[in-house]
Amino acid sequence: MDKFIHHRNLEFLLYELLDTEALLQRPRYHEQSRDVYDSILETARNIARKYLAPHYQKGDANEPEYVDGTTRLIPETKVAWDVIRDAGFLAAHCDEAEGGLQLPEVIFRSATAYFHAANGPTTWYPFLTIGVINLIRAFGSQEQKERYLGALMEGRFAGTMALTEPGQGSALADIKTRAELQDDGTWRIFGQKMFISAGEHDLTGNIIHMVLAKTKGAPPGVKGISLFIVPKFVVGDDGVPGARNDVALAGLLHKMGSRNTSSTVLSFGEKGGAVGYLIGGIGSGLACMFQMMNEARIGVGMNAAALASRGYLYSLDYARDRSQGRLPSNKDPVSPQVPLVAHPDVRRMLLAQKAYAEGALALCLYASSLFEDEHTHPDESRRVSAGVLLGLLTPVVKSWSARYGCEANELAIQVLGGSGYIREHPVEQLYRDQRLNPIHEGAEGIHGIDLLARKVTLRDGEALRLFTEQVRRTGAEAEQVLSVSRHAHALRRQLDALLAVTDGITALARNDPDKGLANATVYLDAFGRVTVAWLWLSQGLVAARALEGSPNDADRLFYKGKLQAAAYYFDWELPQVEPQWRLLTEGNSIPYDMMDTWY
Amino acid sequence: MDKFIHHRNLEFLLYELLDTEALLQRPRYHEQSRDVYDSILETARNIARKYLAPHYQKGDANEPEYVDGTTRLIPETKVAWDVIRDAGFLAAHCDEAEGGLQLPEVIFRSATAYFHAANGPTTWYPFLTIGVINLIRAFGSQEQKERYLGALMEGRFAGTMALTEPGQGSALADIKTRAELQDDGTWRIFGQKMFISAGEHDLTGNIIHMVLAKTKGAPPGVKGISLFIVPKFVVGDDGVPGARNDVALAGLLHKMGSRNTSSTVLSFGEKGGAVGYLIGGIGSGLACMFQMMNEARIGVGMNAAALASRGYLYSLDYARDRSQGRLPSNKDPVSPQVPLVAHPDVRRMLLAQKAYAEGALALCLYASSLFEDEHTHPDESRRVSAGVLLGLLTPVVKSWSARYGCEANELAIQVLGGSGYIREHPVEQLYRDQRLNPIHEGAEGIHGIDLLARKVTLRDGEALRLFTEQVRRTGAEAEQVLSVSRHAHALRRQLDALLAVTDGITALARNDPDKGLANATVYLDAFGRVTVAWLWLSQGLVAARALEGSPNDADRLFYKGKLQAAAYYFDWELPQVEPQWRLLTEGNSIPYDMMDTWY
Repeated sequence: MDKFIHHRNLEFLLYELLDTEALLQRPRYHEQSRDVYDSILETARNIARKYLAPHYQKGDANEPEYVDGTTRLIPETKVAWDVIRDAGFLAAHCDEAEGGLQLPEVIFRSATAYFHAANGPTTWYPFLTIGVINLIRAFGSQEQKERYLGALMEGRFAGTMALTEPGQGSALADIKTRAELQDDGTWRIFGQKMFISAGEHDLTGNIIHMVLAKTKGAPPGVKGISLFIVPKFVVGDDGVPGARNDVALAGLLHKMGSRNTSSTVLSFGEKGGAVGYLIGGIGSGLACMFQMMNEARIGVGMNAAALASRGYLYSLDYARDRSQGRLPSNKDPVSPQVPLVAHPDVRRMLLAQKAYAEGALALCLYASSLFEDEHTHPDESRRVSAGVLLGLLTPVVKSWSARYGCEANELAIQVLGGSGYIREHPVEQLYRDQRLNPIHEGAEGIHGIDLLARKVTLRDGEALRLFTEQVRRTGAEAEQVLSVSRHAHALRRQLDALLAVTDGITALARNDPDKGLANATVYLDAFGRVTVAWLWLSQGLVAARALEGSPNDADRLFYKGKLQAAAYYFDWELPQVEPQWRLLTEGNSIPYDMMDTWY
Repeated sequence: MDKFIHHRNLEFLLYELLDTEALLQRPRYHEQSRDVYDSILETARNIARKYLAPHYQKGDANEPEYVDGTTRLIPETKVAWDVIRDAGFLAAHCDEAEGGLQLPEVIFRSATAYFHAANGPTTWYPFLTIGVINLIRAFGSQEQKERYLGALMEGRFAGTMALTEPGQGSALADIKTRAELQDDGTWRIFGQKMFISAGEHDLTGNIIHMVLAKTKGAPPGVKGISLFIVPKFVVGDDGVPGARNDVALAGLLHKMGSRNTSSTVLSFGEKGGAVGYLIGGIGSGLACMFQMMNEARIGVGMNAAALASRGYLYSLDYARDRSQGRLPSNKDPVSPQVPLVAHPDVRRMLLAQKAYAEGALALCLYASSLFEDEHTHPDESRRVSAGVLLGLLTPVVKSWSARYGCEANELAIQVLGGSGYIREHPVEQLYRDQRLNPIHEGAEGIHGIDLLARKVTLRDGEALRLFTEQVRRTGAEAEQVLSVSRHAHALRRQLDALLAVTDGITALARNDPDKGLANATVYLDAFGRVTVAWLWLSQGLVAARALEGSPNDADRLFYKGKLQAAAYYFDWELPQVEPQWRLLTEGNSIPYDMMDTWY
């Protein structure tokens, strides 16, 4: 299984970079132990290896089929669903008293890394269901919890998030789906939703759609949006699915990748109205949905990290096994060829993949640790600050991981050359699957504006202040350690530049929001680069200190690799922010000034 | 057809940037006229629209099938082949006396831009055949020309280039295919070739494979390689295909994209030896093959430019048609939504695509004009210098176009968002098809070493000197023109940096080739960025001067767009060379020093 996720690296991130064992001190995790976590991760590895990886390519070659108004998946998908359910992962976040695993977020997310790396498309079914479970737990009425949670946790029902509409991609404020209140307090839903992942399938007896819709007379814009539970089969008081609800599969979408996740167009209310149940208050639909969206965004980051990781390890194996060519210094054509990994350019491509894959994994797990602190840290002020920081970093986690996940998978293909381009090897599928990540759960452009227009200015810039403190703390420690002090200085310079740019650009955006936010995507990318530089400095610092002890041989090599990847990141990746700072500082308006008639 | 290639832009490149009409002064083209060229391009547009575009997606969804030892293509492929043949394009380069069109290279390549944009995978069949025609014309004996050329020009035979082997991708020196001389002067070929495009199909009654093999007793390495004509059916003295030769289709490869081009594994000599005919001398196989490879490399560049162009124009249309969201300054949720193209970040993605697509097209046509001058310039010294310059730029044309073609198609997907990821729109297919270009005809790593180890040092650096003179000449003119003078200064700075880096790195490579060439791929990329900056400066200069005249309204908008794209290139793209110069100047050895055991 180290072919998908480097297990030693995962342990490093959990127990050396992040202090996951300290969670055991918190009341919620008192009864647990590192052994418990190790065995959870071992279970996830085994499931990934036995039940997910084997049908990764089959699910791609045999995408979901429209059959009699429903969707048929390859049967391996159902087996995997059952196994994941039986292992308790659907109820990973739920309390033990509810029958859940009560897992810390970092452990849950680490388990998902194995699943995503082995077979992302199949993994989205359980993970969307988990999102619905968490959403109903957070906002559902007592009656709603009783009616749905058990069935979802037991995998009898699955869940979806139904936001996007055919005419509206990222512009949720303009959704047209409407909800009409009935005398009995239920609602009738009318409208169409598009790109709904897992919107129809044959895994479960029922599907619970979480649907955004506008109520009659609601104010325009996002304030008019409410959230509804719309089951495929209306659930009776006995908890048993009864009559077919007025939700129809209008069509399947045929994706470039991630094919085994059905992508659907759903019609609500073509026969008089789909029965829906309001969850949260009227008008608070988007606020509720943001919980699930933010979870899904970290999930996208983790999917991206996992695909990058698998491509990296696969191409590394290939480069070690296959001999080709000679080094330029060797002019003797009868000397043996060298393995691909001996060529410096191949080493560069592998090192870049390592920097992206392990950087993204560190970023996602760090975000998970913030999520954990937000919910279970004993100190209230720490809970608050963790939440604020997580809010700031969520667009970065999602977007940086997706963007550089694509870069990583592109390099995996290049390492294999022609072999990377054919379906006999999995890297081309990883590349196609990965390309979804910069799109779903908010395209990059949206996240750039979210970061720059909302997150960095929130609470008078408190989130950015917390982030800055964190980075400076690591920098101050790292400056004292010879093998990483050079990186610490570089990070300090770029952090200062980030702060200066932020001041300038937010001031501009206050006066002229269109122009001020015009380059927000560049800002998002540069912010991500600085954030991941901080995580590479942190990893390098841990590795440098570990090397000062007496690690065993395997660990010594591992830590050396961490230091080299950190050096790669600081020399090859981070300096690319400099042209970005210039564009942002001068408020470059070349794209902004481009006229439609000039293209 | 302006959906695929912007016709006005093509005219601009041919007749305003390059002085294509001046070719009419050369004896070879005396009888031709701009009207002839316009009608050739109009024919190409029509073929592309009527016979290529309609089966682009069908060819992807129904890839070549292995049937009874041969390969079945969708029948539209054969119709397109016939139409392209009937229009005379197979004999585009041949003399009129031979029955050819006797076209200048820039006109031929411009025609191929339409074909590639409409349907690249189908286009490779005729264009590989054209490469074989040109190869036999250059190196074949009189007897070989008589036997094969007519049938190839008339489209009764097709051609392939058979270089790569299962164990050897880029390492041609190590091919294992061998050739044994027979008493009758023919040869018997034994071995296996892989990734042979168009290696088997049902378009023609015969296929002529140009096969690299080693003769008995040949020296090791590239000097031992010879080139052989190996027909699928042995051609008798009457010119009619006779007995089936000992060449078998061992299997089809299943590519991520470019699927309608069959990719084959071919076995030679499993039944006693495939009959082959030596072409060129013994040991000169690679030298001969380089003619076809270099042609194919410009062809890859043109394919990349064409796919980028189609994705650009498609996403531009989409962004104009689809309304979504509002500008940040507009807080009124009941105001109408704006078209996607009104969002600055979308304008950036479109402008970047324009810069890449039109930059690549300019680069490929400029290379074609060098090819033309190399062969038909009346002044011998100009013929020589054009050849030298083309040699220098070939790796750049191929690699820059491929790399930034991928970037362009990635942005086309992003402009469409979720719709870009589904097969209902063509941009995901363009993205998959394009991904082949950084791999075939030499992966990027190979071209980087070719450029740095061979091309820039050739003839004591003459090629680089010629390139420098060219760039400085444009720069000196542009410095006098207000709207582009800023760019001219920037280009001068980066050209100086390129020259300094080249001096440093070639000196290092002389002492330590492995270390000196370790970052050759970075050098290649930076060299490409400078080259395309020069072409954008040149285009900007032409546009600026045209605007000083009194262009009509449509032209005025077009020239404004050129100036804006040039400004985009200089502000957003070119500065990215700066971190690259630092890596190259310091001879950064982080990837070089990475140990296999540290990953």
